[in-house]
Amino acid sequence: MSKFQAPRGTQDLFLDSMNEWQQVETRIRELAKLYNMGEIRTPVFEHTEVFNRKNDSSDVVNKEMYTFKDNSDRSLTLKPEGTAGLIRSYVENKLYTNPEPLHKFYYITPAFRYERPQKGRMRIHHQFGVEFLGQKSAIVDVQAMLVGIHFVRSFGLKNVVLHINTLGDDDSRAAYREALKQHFEPSIHELCTDCHRRYEQNPLRILDCKVDAQHPSVVNAPKMRDYLNKASTEYFDQVLQLLDDFKIDYVVDPKLVRGLDYYTHTVFELKNHTKDTGSQDTLFGGGRYDHLVEEFEGPAISSVGFGLGLERFILMLKAQGLLKAEVHPLDLYGLSLSESTQVEMLRIIEALRSENISCDFDIANRSMKAQFKSADRFNARFLLILGEDEQRNNTIRVKNSMTQQQVEISQDDLIDYVKTQLSDKENRNEENA
Amino acid sequence: MSKFQAPRGTQDLFLDSMNEWQQVETRIRELAKLYNMGEIRTPVFEHTEVFNRKNDSSDVVNKEMYTFKDNSDRSLTLKPEGTAGLIRSYVENKLYTNPEPLHKFYYITPAFRYERPQKGRMRIHHQFGVEFLGQKSAIVDVQAMLVGIHFVRSFGLKNVVLHINTLGDDDSRAAYREALKQHFEPSIHELCTDCHRRYEQNPLRILDCKVDAQHPSVVNAPKMRDYLNKASTEYFDQVLQLLDDFKIDYVVDPKLVRGLDYYTHTVFELKNHTKDTGSQDTLFGGGRYDHLVEEFEGPAISSVGFGLGLERFILMLKAQGLLKAEVHPLDLYGLSLSESTQVEMLRIIEALRSENISCDFDIANRSMKAQFKSADRFNARFLLILGEDEQRNNTIRVKNSMTQQQVEISQDDLIDYVKTQLSDKENRNEENA
Repeated sequence: MSKFQAPRGTQDLFLDSMNEWQQVETRIRELAKLYNMGEIRTPVFEHTEVFNRKNDSSDVVNKEMYTFKDNSDRSLTLKPEGTAGLIRSYVENKLYTNPEPLHKFYYITPAFRYERPQKGRMRIHHQFGVEFLGQKSAIVDVQAMLVGIHFVRSFGLKNVVLHINTLGDDDSRAAYREALKQHFEPSIHELCTDCHRRYEQNPLRILDCKVDAQHPSVVNAPKMRDYLNKASTEYFDQVLQLLDDFKIDYVVDPKLVRGLDYYTHTVFELKNHTKDTGSQDTLFGGGRYDHLVEEFEGPAISSVGFGLGLERFILMLKAQGLLKAEVHPLDLYGLSLSESTQVEMLRIIEALRSENISCDFDIANRSMKAQFKSADRFNARFLLILGEDEQRNNTIRVKNSMTQQQVEISQDDLIDYVKTQLSDKENRNEENA
Repeated sequence: MSKFQAPRGTQDLFLDSMNEWQQVETRIRELAKLYNMGEIRTPVFEHTEVFNRKNDSSDVVNKEMYTFKDNSDRSLTLKPEGTAGLIRSYVENKLYTNPEPLHKFYYITPAFRYERPQKGRMRIHHQFGVEFLGQKSAIVDVQAMLVGIHFVRSFGLKNVVLHINTLGDDDSRAAYREALKQHFEPSIHELCTDCHRRYEQNPLRILDCKVDAQHPSVVNAPKMRDYLNKASTEYFDQVLQLLDDFKIDYVVDPKLVRGLDYYTHTVFELKNHTKDTGSQDTLFGGGRYDHLVEEFEGPAISSVGFGLGLERFILMLKAQGLLKAEVHPLDLYGLSLSESTQVEMLRIIEALRSENISCDFDIANRSMKAQFKSADRFNARFLLILGEDEQRNNTIRVKNSMTQQQVEISQDDLIDYVKTQLSDKENRNEENA
């Protein structure tokens, strides 16, 4: 491999691929406006302690982080996910003092995991995430899910099913952990080494082990629902009732525990059920967490959120033909008939750009044919043609790409003429983006 | 320092600060459209060789990079600036095969330098950069500068002066290097240790050493212009002539050599001359580079570009009162008169959001006064009021925030009513963003 290649598991975005990402990001910004969510950005790296907390047994924290020391020997980690940095910032900046009862944030962030690269699994991937902090209620849980569902549906994705489960409150989960520990004690030596660690740190996570999924002790493990206390059951029932009210297609999945350790009560994943392959791709996942703000030395504030991996999402949209690169029309392309008119063309183009008219022009003194091709590639609505004759007479020719109509006008009238023509809807071959 | 703080020299963005950044980024996207530039994104880290090239003696490359090994012992570096990764990508992805003669890219990227944090100098800062690849001409140089000047002026910054210099072509620069080496040979031991390295690697960079700026050997150093050959002089004269044509305020600054080593011909910096303090803050800097694409094992392609540090730029705009957080109006805020109407309110709000109406509502069953305050903070154009009476009658009250007019209508008519009201310009307290 050449030393001058992008590192394994990373990708460059440009031209069509960039255009597709921009469409998705624009949709996120529109969604944020509809739901009155504010963007938040936290640094690409944090002190390692932000991710490596005593209560977290996640695989990513244990094995896959990019951790290094800075020149002062301080341990830093490239963020493996978006929530921990957000909560660190929420506490450090005392955002909980905002008088609104519910604090709604979204983020778009790179996330870094040293894992075996495969399709849609990158070492640098990007997450769109949402966190609603400050209120613990089934309505808020469902509203967070609706943000994600609204987003996914807006691209025309149809066969989506919400998988949902509850991990209950602290008491329920403590009882369930105890039951799982007793259940797995005789067989834990038969399970994978990751499960040995999970057994000590968080036995619930044995339930979604990919290696041991078929092991009888996993298949026959006790069920969370048998350990839920009354309050936890009622909370979950309210969530399910609201999903019914909103006609959300869902399944209760008792094995759903999510890959991070901090969840309480509701956990969920939206999956795309592909009929022909039978595969179920996760679009986003998240849940409620009651203690994370306290873990970061903040007050007792309950939150709910989800994260969506953008690389995988975009691959899925493209595979289903739901996302295509769009060529935004350029207002105008300038053709120079000789090298001597280039400076004059630049002057004209700059004057148009000052009036918010999007322009480009030939800079290489190419053949007319080549210049027309460029205008076509850029989907230019109007062409400007400037030769030595026009320059001498202080005129310029303007051609409408759609109607092929051409006029020669004084350069002094150009800006007004172009503005009038552009504002005439009939001259728009498509809506300006 | 708590372990749960953002690392030194980094910052979080949220609420007002985020809003200010979004305004600047929106301006960049508008500018990109006007100039027909495509966005490009490259990974946050690259193989260290991408930055640590044999021809580069920059301080940042020598001392300030975040370099670490991944789990496979491969040396990676967080990008210290935007150009090297872009050129690596340009070559790796053969973007030079695009039939357009000029390839115009922009980027917004984090950049990482382990330096002493100070106002506007962050360990993680962000750059807006532009690169025009594929044509070597004074018109292209000036067009690149105009992008930056257009951007800066669009915020109302006025006292800006372009500082410009030429480093000439290879022959001119080789002659000048030789002259500088001879000139500094007797006195190099009196200069700083960085200058010792510069003397060996790139003696031009001694000229912008901050430590030795007043040393007689620096003050009396030979001037580049005395070593320019005819072609280099002509090229520079064309650039200056164009700047005159475009009425750009500029000064020729023979000491301007820029902090990176790869420049040839034109180099420039736009500075903000603050009259009261007499200080000159650099807004952006860049230049032409003839050999960088070849250094990355690509063809001989000449390019010109610049980079602008966003943190410093935003600080400067704010200091001059040219950038303020804006509260975008929310279309509608929903007030619930009792807990029992919250679910119904969520249903109504979700229906409105599906029609692209931006909404929020009270989720905490607060007092009417508190709910009105929220509506006011969010600058809501319309208020919805839902109590148990309205719920029973399938009606809802809609109040226009500006006129204070209130109507009670059937819930079935709500979406049409709100849409009509919102599209009526008189009901807009300000333009929708």
